[in-house]
Amino acid sequence: MFAPVSPLAPRRFPDLPEIAGVEAAIGCAGFYKQDREDLLLVRCAPNTRAAGVFTTNAVGSAPTDWCKQVLAAGRGQVRGLLINAGCANSFTGQEGYDACKRALEAAAAKLELQVKDMMASSTGVIGVCLDDAKIAAALPSMELGRVDWPKAAEAIATTDTFAKGAGATARIDGVEVKLAGIAKGSGMIAPNMATMLAFVFTDAALSTPVLSTLLRAETEVSFNSITVDGDRSTNDCVLLFATGQAKVAPIADAKDPKLADFRRALNQVLTDLAMQIVRDGEGATKLFTVNVSGAIHDASAKAIARVICESPLVKTAIAGEDANWGRIVMAIGRADQPIQRDLVSVKFGELWAARNGKVASSYDEAAMSAYMKKPELEISVVVGPGSGKARMHGCDLTKRYVEINGDYRS
Amino acid sequence: MFAPVSPLAPRRFPDLPEIAGVEAAIGCAGFYKQDREDLLLVRCAPNTRAAGVFTTNAVGSAPTDWCKQVLAAGRGQVRGLLINAGCANSFTGQEGYDACKRALEAAAAKLELQVKDMMASSTGVIGVCLDDAKIAAALPSMELGRVDWPKAAEAIATTDTFAKGAGATARIDGVEVKLAGIAKGSGMIAPNMATMLAFVFTDAALSTPVLSTLLRAETEVSFNSITVDGDRSTNDCVLLFATGQAKVAPIADAKDPKLADFRRALNQVLTDLAMQIVRDGEGATKLFTVNVSGAIHDASAKAIARVICESPLVKTAIAGEDANWGRIVMAIGRADQPIQRDLVSVKFGELWAARNGKVASSYDEAAMSAYMKKPELEISVVVGPGSGKARMHGCDLTKRYVEINGDYRS
Repeated sequence: MFAPVSPLAPRRFPDLPEIAGVEAAIGCAGFYKQDREDLLLVRCAPNTRAAGVFTTNAVGSAPTDWCKQVLAAGRGQVRGLLINAGCANSFTGQEGYDACKRALEAAAAKLELQVKDMMASSTGVIGVCLDDAKIAAALPSMELGRVDWPKAAEAIATTDTFAKGAGATARIDGVEVKLAGIAKGSGMIAPNMATMLAFVFTDAALSTPVLSTLLRAETEVSFNSITVDGDRSTNDCVLLFATGQAKVAPIADAKDPKLADFRRALNQVLTDLAMQIVRDGEGATKLFTVNVSGAIHDASAKAIARVICESPLVKTAIAGEDANWGRIVMAIGRADQPIQRDLVSVKFGELWAARNGKVASSYDEAAMSAYMKKPELEISVVVGPGSGKARMHGCDLTKRYVEINGDYRS
Repeated sequence: MFAPVSPLAPRRFPDLPEIAGVEAAIGCAGFYKQDREDLLLVRCAPNTRAAGVFTTNAVGSAPTDWCKQVLAAGRGQVRGLLINAGCANSFTGQEGYDACKRALEAAAAKLELQVKDMMASSTGVIGVCLDDAKIAAALPSMELGRVDWPKAAEAIATTDTFAKGAGATARIDGVEVKLAGIAKGSGMIAPNMATMLAFVFTDAALSTPVLSTLLRAETEVSFNSITVDGDRSTNDCVLLFATGQAKVAPIADAKDPKLADFRRALNQVLTDLAMQIVRDGEGATKLFTVNVSGAIHDASAKAIARVICESPLVKTAIAGEDANWGRIVMAIGRADQPIQRDLVSVKFGELWAARNGKVASSYDEAAMSAYMKKPELEISVVVGPGSGKARMHGCDLTKRYVEINGDYRS
């Protein structure tokens, strides 16, 4: 299922730390025609705290509805997680919700947990109700144990061409804590709240409000700063679990300075996972980063960066290794943000294409063409005299994207 | 230049009426490597009135800046028009503006008009300053005469695969008036204000405010209701000229009931031209119309229709003849508009795919697959109990779009 692998893929799956208090089991419910694992079951230690960010797509899905309810109930502990690939269980009404709940009840029974301590996540085709009987049938043969991260990441993949994981360590009050995360995502990726599935585990001892605050802030600059095709899925979520098994005093205030290093590590893991998703953008052959500066504020800069990253004309030009900076100027102009045309400047890498509202006097087509052949590009634009800045990551639009998505369901 | 012709092209260029008081000349300034005509010069009778709608792209271009100034000056008459293909003269600063003005001065001298009565329009590569010397050199050999509409439409084309024209007649106060229009556009097409070039001429006698009011209203439901790729050009404009040569009393009030039939005819011409642009969407093999109903108001319905029409996943599914209605549901959900999920319904032609928040009980994959093979598709969605409605037209996203746009400048 992971072939052909994206040319932008990392060389190998990273070595992830074991997170004390996290066990997992992998299974095959048969949601795919081909023989592949499509179920991941996770059990966390008692008193594990969790936070989540979910898709802003108004249609949503049964599992995201469920998770939001569990978190809103505010019971504190969240101990179980059931993830399936192959069926999104989105747009399936009450029937889909009931099926999600039955699947969680079966999973909770196996984990010896209460269903209200369970989270659910699904990915796959929209509009098909989850066949929970398949999950119930698969559960008995699934063996809980130490997490095999690469296999766990493979079990939750759909059109991904490689398994995605990232890990880090951090110090809280001098004590080492660990983080490990996995993600899936390749198409239907747009930056607004989480836009795919990602699950991060840590043995740090953090309260639910702390987890929630950190997750929201760090999602904004990681998952919410990537885009593959501007299409925002119904099922996206990022969940962060803290088992509290590290020998460190619990932290209940998100502003506690002791959290600085943990926050850096969380940012590192989320950014790493997010960038792996762009690297696996359907059909992608080029990764590009857009830096916008000089906007009236950061949100305006981000809106401009997003339009550039999602413009089909910019994306196809990059696929064609064409330094078509005029299309970048067009995209800046159509973002419906205040700009000063005669200050607009565009740079590819260190090469200026446009300066202050017109082509750069130093413009050199040969140097530009050579730069465009790189697999990873940096595009920096100035849009005015303001202090607003943003950074966003996207990928090119190729024939392969059209091919993959013209024939997904069949 | 017009090969391979879009499979959605009309069978032939329509017979357009002669508009009394309009003469034209076609020329070759040499903006293209290949041998093709790229200049169109138009002269209208004394006292011709004009109105225009222009791109909302904040970068704009020298010719749109010029036209807006001429119209804002409110002198009343507009008599000349110079259009070139091959160079957009956008993002060229003061230098570009000066070049535009010099080209117009040369054209005005030839037409024996004042430069302040001239309009300009350019299309082509962004960021290259207009070489007005090429235009000045081409003008002497251009012969003004009766308008050859197909040739005029070809002279203003860029990546178009066929020439676009539409005509109509209407009665004002019992007198027949005529309308003839041409347009160009194929890529960088998104619905907000005019999103390509279109020029419509009539012999009716209408004041500038009347022309302006009618043009704005009818552009909203024609050119502003189409999309090819969501990329809004820097140079778009629709210009409407009324020579007043028909033997009918001038009308100065846009609400005058005598205008009803003219308004219908104007709508017909603008809609016809707009649809021809979608039919020539770069790489398009399918034309689809999205009808949204049940939204909280019309603007909300239009926002949803736009997201559906521009979703890469919807567009590639249509290219692949896949009735992937789940992606339409996804697009509805990501439009950031109020919807009622459990009322959402999706219909392809007369076939219900989804009813009230889940798959339709009558869903028939074979019938659906057969429907998707048609070259023109109708997708209707209900998003709630409201009265807001909209209709928008788009085309599929194919490998050919990627091919065309990955290699445009070279």
